Amino acid sequence: MEKQNAPIGIFDSGLGGLTVVKEVLKQLPNENIIYIGDTARVPYGNKSPETVIRFTTECVNVLKEQNVKMVVIACNTASSSGIEQIQDQFDFPVVGVVKPGALAAYKSTKKQKVGVIGTERTIKSGSYERAIKALNPDIEVWSKACPLFVPLVEEGWFDNDITRRIIRVYLSELMGKGIDTLVLGCTHYPLLKNTIKDIVGNDIRLVDSAEETAMVVKDIVRHHQMERHKNDNPEHQFFVTDAPEKFVELGEIFLQHKIKHISKIELESEIGGIK
Amino acid sequence: MEKQNAPIGIFDSGLGGLTVVKEVLKQLPNENIIYIGDTARVPYGNKSPETVIRFTTECVNVLKEQNVKMVVIACNTASSSGIEQIQDQFDFPVVGVVKPGALAAYKSTKKQKVGVIGTERTIKSGSYERAIKALNPDIEVWSKACPLFVPLVEEGWFDNDITRRIIRVYLSELMGKGIDTLVLGCTHYPLLKNTIKDIVGNDIRLVDSAEETAMVVKDIVRHHQMERHKNDNPEHQFFVTDAPEKFVELGEIFLQHKIKHISKIELESEIGGIK
Repeated sequence: MEKQNAPIGIFDSGLGGLTVVKEVLKQLPNENIIYIGDTARVPYGNKSPETVIRFTTECVNVLKEQNVKMVVIACNTASSSGIEQIQDQFDFPVVGVVKPGALAAYKSTKKQKVGVIGTERTIKSGSYERAIKALNPDIEVWSKACPLFVPLVEEGWFDNDITRRIIRVYLSELMGKGIDTLVLGCTHYPLLKNTIKDIVGNDIRLVDSAEETAMVVKDIVRHHQMERHKNDNPEHQFFVTDAPEKFVELGEIFLQHKIKHISKIELESEIGGIK
Repeated sequence: MEKQNAPIGIFDSGLGGLTVVKEVLKQLPNENIIYIGDTARVPYGNKSPETVIRFTTECVNVLKEQNVKMVVIACNTASSSGIEQIQDQFDFPVVGVVKPGALAAYKSTKKQKVGVIGTERTIKSGSYERAIKALNPDIEVWSKACPLFVPLVEEGWFDNDITRRIIRVYLSELMGKGIDTLVLGCTHYPLLKNTIKDIVGNDIRLVDSAEETAMVVKDIVRHHQMERHKNDNPEHQFFVTDAPEKFVELGEIFLQHKIKHISKIELESEIGGIK
């Protein structure tokens, strides 16, 4: 019973994970949510897997102390950098966004040809390709890192002439492969969804992990009988490791909702000496 | 005497500071150099001043333990976020890039109209404007944050059609002000120098803080009689807080030289609990 009222923890390297929060709230509107964005160290997309896993584990530990009933790793880069290592350390369910995204792609593709876009680290990891091929080894998968998409979104250039040209440069090769499904393998990319859709055309379905991840979260809370049914005002708390102001400004665009309760948590650090 | 052989410490949030290393080596070829790039937490450009100062202080402490004779804060964002706070903590000279860059702009401008470009944090801080006006309050200064320039450089798009369009979008307003000098207030921007020059034309002189900073470093080591005169092979060591591979790849483009001695230093961290 206690678990029903426990919050769902959602972690992201920054604010991209708010696209996942939005979907979780849509499907599970009574849940209490605690979100952590590691804004002092964002982005993770071009960092090493060891560093990404270490930073992620630190943040999940903070969620654990809040007695969360489960954790969603909403960051594609973190979900791609060895999520099993994180899952092994905690005794509550830890869900990434890659497997749900791969499942959505598997369900979507008719021609068995899928494209995946993401950060440099996500693409290098091959995580989506492995997860899609685990569902059906006959699906062909092509991947492309699009490192300029995150800064474009953060600049607020969702749809201008430059953004369109960059999308064309990054996607032209994938489009030439005859894919019918394109996985948006980064939580920032849904904000470019309409522009990308316009460029790739109606024959390619865009898959956004956020929606499918929210369905997995719903399955888990139901399966473990820990869904919260009270329909009073559930608590949605947001925590960041750097100053909250900028997070709120851009975050409300991602969440499409007001961000009320936000605080900074302290990040203690020390650099080891040179040996 | 001992101080002469002591290394010069150079700090940057990532690899941009290598443009400063390049200039220091040109002007002081006999010096031993220790460079630290905080690649696990890069970029600093859109983070809060408190966080930037904290991370910078941690890195300067590592340099202090190596008995450096002075430190160069090669990162414009860190130099703009309250460098006095850092200088107060150490008993060796700590030099930023903003004052040297401002001095170069002051010397360059004939029309007393200067433009400054940099990261969001550098521009918000108003550091260049203050430093230029301290030299001559009659100089008019216009500033513009160019957050896409760093990712463009890191993508290796130094001069393509998209880069040119983005430069035009960011600089058109400044160009309309009749400036004759433009400060490249970020260590990544010298890699776009030729393309920017081509767009702004010959009437606008581009000022790059790296060269002027190296001259200040030379003045300081001479003034304190700590210049190294031995012309054996001086040591150039590089340290990063994330995996070194990517740093080397792009770093050699910045440095225009091979990077031989590079190691990772451990970044210990812990996130405080939610209160």
